[in-house]
Amino acid sequence: MQYPEPIAKLIDSYMKLPGIGSKTATRLAFFTIDMQDDDVTQFAKALIAAKKDLHYCSVCGNITETDPCMVCTDKTRDNSQVIVVEQPKDVMSLERMHEYHGLYHVLHGVLSPIEGKGPEDINITSLVKRLQQNEQIKEVIIATNATPEGEATAMYLSRLIKPAQIKVTRLAHGLAVGSDIEYADEMTLFKAIEGRQEI
Amino acid sequence: MQYPEPIAKLIDSYMKLPGIGSKTATRLAFFTIDMQDDDVTQFAKALIAAKKDLHYCSVCGNITETDPCMVCTDKTRDNSQVIVVEQPKDVMSLERMHEYHGLYHVLHGVLSPIEGKGPEDINITSLVKRLQQNEQIKEVIIATNATPEGEATAMYLSRLIKPAQIKVTRLAHGLAVGSDIEYADEMTLFKAIEGRQEI
Repeated sequence: MQYPEPIAKLIDSYMKLPGIGSKTATRLAFFTIDMQDDDVTQFAKALIAAKKDLHYCSVCGNITETDPCMVCTDKTRDNSQVIVVEQPKDVMSLERMHEYHGLYHVLHGVLSPIEGKGPEDINITSLVKRLQQNEQIKEVIIATNATPEGEATAMYLSRLIKPAQIKVTRLAHGLAVGSDIEYADEMTLFKAIEGRQEI
Repeated sequence: MQYPEPIAKLIDSYMKLPGIGSKTATRLAFFTIDMQDDDVTQFAKALIAAKKDLHYCSVCGNITETDPCMVCTDKTRDNSQVIVVEQPKDVMSLERMHEYHGLYHVLHGVLSPIEGKGPEDINITSLVKRLQQNEQIKEVIIATNATPEGEATAMYLSRLIKPAQIKVTRLAHGLAVGSDIEYADEMTLFKAIEGRQEI
């Protein structure tokens, strides 16, 4: 006996999501059947709307309903600083801090020779153009992840941008706030010592 | 800055699924935006279809597109045996074995005094009626989970059904095939010794 077709199709759809295998997909599908009608309808509508109503900002590459996005059009923001991140969710994480009031640029990936991703595959061209066209940008803060690919991308961008007399900085590496030295890995400890500051 | 509304709504919908918190929901929502248009449309349709086209079989309580379900209407199946399970997915698990050719009855839950679930809250009345109306049923095999609630439900059903001269059996407890005695818990070992068989 096979699953009835509607549930088999739903299981297939759930399995397309990252980190969801057949067991979890089956559990989610059966859960869906027991959900409120309204919730399921809303879920289906949200899926369609997220795909249809969201675009990438033509200036910074962030996800937005309007183009340019709310950050790029906000006159109160400091347009002398641009933070470069890998993904749109990184923008949200930085915004949650409520301490940064500059602009953003989303790369949508990192340089990765292993995956065959070169400079033309991520959103670098538009960053260079943006820096050329906006002379008020004085500093580019590179906030790619602290992974080998993130580091390599940071170095590449730094070499690309510095000749234009724009300050290029990188987020500090070190111990996470609240973490134990006992559990910190060697690289983090090394970076923490290297970046030590006088108190 | 908040997430754009379409993505915030999609995150909310993902969070309604079991075992998915705000971090996973956010990851899934951003993943959805990068999915193929077709896949997302199909996902949305599958959600609606699963909710609209699936019903519970009026005879056995299993999930089905047609009523009665394919098992209940299948004339080639042995209608002298009924396996009682907690959930529709249990039926699928048993069917995957390809060794059982009798009928099923889905309780949609177990007796649980802690959660305030009594006999009237699960699909027991229809089981009793079914046994009264179908004299060809000779054996009820109780396949509720090996949890305290599953055991209690099995005992309750056994006491309810036995007076009608119907054989009531319970799935065997013991070591899972391929498992190590070293890692078996005490209750399982106890049940395995209790249920030992001559070889």
